[in-house]
Amino acid sequence: MRLILQPGTKIVVATHNPGKARELAEILENRFDLVTAGQLSLAEPDETETTFEGNALLKARAAAQASGLIALADDSGLSVQALGGAPGIYSARWAGETKDFGVAMARIEQDLRSSGASDLRAWFTCALAVAWPDGPAVVVEGRVAGNLTFPARGDRGFGYDPIFVPEGETQTFGEMEPARKDAMSHRSRAFAQLRAALL
Amino acid sequence: MRLILQPGTKIVVATHNPGKARELAEILENRFDLVTAGQLSLAEPDETETTFEGNALLKARAAAQASGLIALADDSGLSVQALGGAPGIYSARWAGETKDFGVAMARIEQDLRSSGASDLRAWFTCALAVAWPDGPAVVVEGRVAGNLTFPARGDRGFGYDPIFVPEGETQTFGEMEPARKDAMSHRSRAFAQLRAALL
Repeated sequence: MRLILQPGTKIVVATHNPGKARELAEILENRFDLVTAGQLSLAEPDETETTFEGNALLKARAAAQASGLIALADDSGLSVQALGGAPGIYSARWAGETKDFGVAMARIEQDLRSSGASDLRAWFTCALAVAWPDGPAVVVEGRVAGNLTFPARGDRGFGYDPIFVPEGETQTFGEMEPARKDAMSHRSRAFAQLRAALL
Repeated sequence: MRLILQPGTKIVVATHNPGKARELAEILENRFDLVTAGQLSLAEPDETETTFEGNALLKARAAAQASGLIALADDSGLSVQALGGAPGIYSARWAGETKDFGVAMARIEQDLRSSGASDLRAWFTCALAVAWPDGPAVVVEGRVAGNLTFPARGDRGFGYDPIFVPEGETQTFGEMEPARKDAMSHRSRAFAQLRAALL
């Protein structure tokens, strides 16, 4: 089986979030016939792996196996150097059931203060996995390095964007024009790799 | 980056076991310039993932990152239905530091007896991962289903082979001619997928 995604291929996106599915469709330039795991009522697997790539692969495998379709999944998060890489794969979980990233950002600030560390380096990671049912899977990872800043600034983007200033920039991802953020984001870098590999 | 392995490509095999590296070289029909993680003195990462594919990917990523070369890693094991899939990813660890699979096979027999289960179904899994440094990774998985038999029979193969009879067969993997085992094994199936995808 050649690892090529033909235009028009039906792909299940392993997310139950319609906004995320729409965003993925745009990134994929509407080249594919996308359905979501939510639309197909697929169960969401537990994210039991210890790495972004491992969890993206696990989610893509589960969706491909349950649907019989090629599946795309992502896993992403923020890693803070002075916190040993936390929250990392737990980035979404730190925001809790209500997805309150204000709480999660406050926790990072608090943990950094408690640790006494002055090192504010951090990086975002986005892992993407494409799995063929009963076949191979392709996994890529994009990263962007930067520094944290407190208090949070900007109401664009989502998640931890308002406390993250990419290297060489002065604005946080929360303040940046979407097109400017897209030009350097972990997610864009992961998709660029995936496109280069599979399209 | 196209996901193709050109003949002659230098590939680091993420194993410290020279016998395993030799076996992989044969399976790859000596098409590549193979070195082992042991020859390059690369550290062995902890196998922290919960799936065969996750651990194969983790080992390939670590070797690719440390060496700057394309890396190949495998992870394999035996899963027993009535033991909830155990030993699974812990198959090698059940054999201990001394790699005594006699002990590990006795433990399976004992655990099955303790559980009172009469279901002897089991399957071998082999996951393979090829990782490009700072690039994509391809992951495949091969499986073979069968039934356990006690006492162990045959001194060919390795690991749990002497207690595993593949579906439709009467001999254990430990009794079978190597060529016959190779025609149906989880490892062969994984390599067939990898060849189809990358060569």
